[in-house]
Amino acid sequence: MNIGFIGLGIMGAPMALRLAQAGHQLYVSNLGPVAAELLNLGAKVCPTPRLVTENADIIIIMVPDTPQVEDVLFGMEGCAETSLNGKTIVDMSSISPVETKRFALKVIELGGEYLDAPVSGGEIGAREGTLSIMVGGNPDVFDKVKPFFELMGKNITLIGGNGDGQTCKVANQIIVALNIEAVSEALLFASKAGADPGRVRKALMGGFASSRILEVHGERMIKRTFAPGFKIALHQKDLNLALQSAKALAVNLPNTATCQELFNTCAANGGSQLDHSALVQALELMANHKIA
Amino acid sequence: MNIGFIGLGIMGAPMALRLAQAGHQLYVSNLGPVAAELLNLGAKVCPTPRLVTENADIIIIMVPDTPQVEDVLFGMEGCAETSLNGKTIVDMSSISPVETKRFALKVIELGGEYLDAPVSGGEIGAREGTLSIMVGGNPDVFDKVKPFFELMGKNITLIGGNGDGQTCKVANQIIVALNIEAVSEALLFASKAGADPGRVRKALMGGFASSRILEVHGERMIKRTFAPGFKIALHQKDLNLALQSAKALAVNLPNTATCQELFNTCAANGGSQLDHSALVQALELMANHKIA
Repeated sequence: MNIGFIGLGIMGAPMALRLAQAGHQLYVSNLGPVAAELLNLGAKVCPTPRLVTENADIIIIMVPDTPQVEDVLFGMEGCAETSLNGKTIVDMSSISPVETKRFALKVIELGGEYLDAPVSGGEIGAREGTLSIMVGGNPDVFDKVKPFFELMGKNITLIGGNGDGQTCKVANQIIVALNIEAVSEALLFASKAGADPGRVRKALMGGFASSRILEVHGERMIKRTFAPGFKIALHQKDLNLALQSAKALAVNLPNTATCQELFNTCAANGGSQLDHSALVQALELMANHKIA
Repeated sequence: MNIGFIGLGIMGAPMALRLAQAGHQLYVSNLGPVAAELLNLGAKVCPTPRLVTENADIIIIMVPDTPQVEDVLFGMEGCAETSLNGKTIVDMSSISPVETKRFALKVIELGGEYLDAPVSGGEIGAREGTLSIMVGGNPDVFDKVKPFFELMGKNITLIGGNGDGQTCKVANQIIVALNIEAVSEALLFASKAGADPGRVRKALMGGFASSRILEVHGERMIKRTFAPGFKIALHQKDLNLALQSAKALAVNLPNTATCQELFNTCAANGGSQLDHSALVQALELMANHKIA
């Protein structure tokens, strides 16, 4: 199959490489960090999204945020500057669910097909082909693209129609951030009250407080290992999507808003490149300094 | 062993019963909902904490809140109105960790021993002897009381010195409340964005958003089954302990404070006797009404 891949960054490059390694002909917007391997596997560089679209049947997009997806699709020399008849656009970036619905409608109006398919699992998941992929779109289109998703991920779910993949990803990022904040408040409280936070964490692991975050990020907080992992700067971007979409949908997300402020506090103090479990340091900072 | 048991309420009564069933002589402050069984097993009623203390070696307290424990220990006809030499006070109520340290010091000064040993697991756990018990105190005292804890619970942990059991319980209640709030924000967001919250929950269960709360309370939110479980009114009491202690310890718990406000919103609208997963309804209420 002729596959277009636009956006070969930290995530996109290893994902594209896995498709090429499975024998697919790739048309890529750039070569990124896996240039030599891709060229060996016969990948061809097309300098614009329009040219990628002309050559490929399925066009995968993996770019940083909503405006970049809009530009790839509908900007100058974008995908929509050639015919979208018979073309399937698969946006694997993490972007606004509200804008995604608009993009999908427009692509479908122009004769194309559209899936939103954001991922979680990070760079390691991308390299190992173990990403979780949350998909929104038409079930027939999903079935057609699924074999390609299976080259990149393990836990692949069709959530619903267009936008629902992005909605699921946002919901994931809300829970992850808020569970990190929950563990931060609990362990800081324990430590301020004079208890050993490590023992508290262990005692809580079997019960109703147990979570993947208590397990993994709770341990990072206790061992003070804040190398990423998933960077605060990226989680700020995701909570920004949550809060912007919440405004558009008229829904109140009070603790998500506070979490974003705590990430902002981390960033203000030089922590934006640390793992998101370093959010605990924003609370510590507020409890441990002198105001004169 | 002669065991005193003060506070035979919904939790205390089945806990006391398990001790009597194991063959221990009980001295109880009242008979509560298991009166006939306790009398059959030879339990004796002592109308004051002082009389319970005179008769028993280990005195277990299971009352609603901090002021009641203070009253049992140091009030009129309280435990401290007789000699505490050789007596072990075991407070299994959920109360302030800060006040607990004060109570423990005072009991020890008076020649007694003190453990704080709050539980989680609810009425069912109390009846079945499967409570989690989080203990603070001297390791030798813990070892002495452990066989009795084992008649009432399964997951029994010595967290540290006096107060640390209560601290661990507060940490537990912070995480449980905040994880419920996290799942509430995520599922309400998903639903407002037009996605099926049930499918979103399922897709998130394998990954970093997974938690016991997403599993159990997330399902209650989706199925709209808000029969308790653990009542909002009780969680309000526990978050009050968290927020009061946080003030005493000078630590900032922003999302715990917001959670309490959301529980207050539930209570304001008639929901205080519902399961704590009904917190989602406070967010729904704020998103679904008309302001004219």
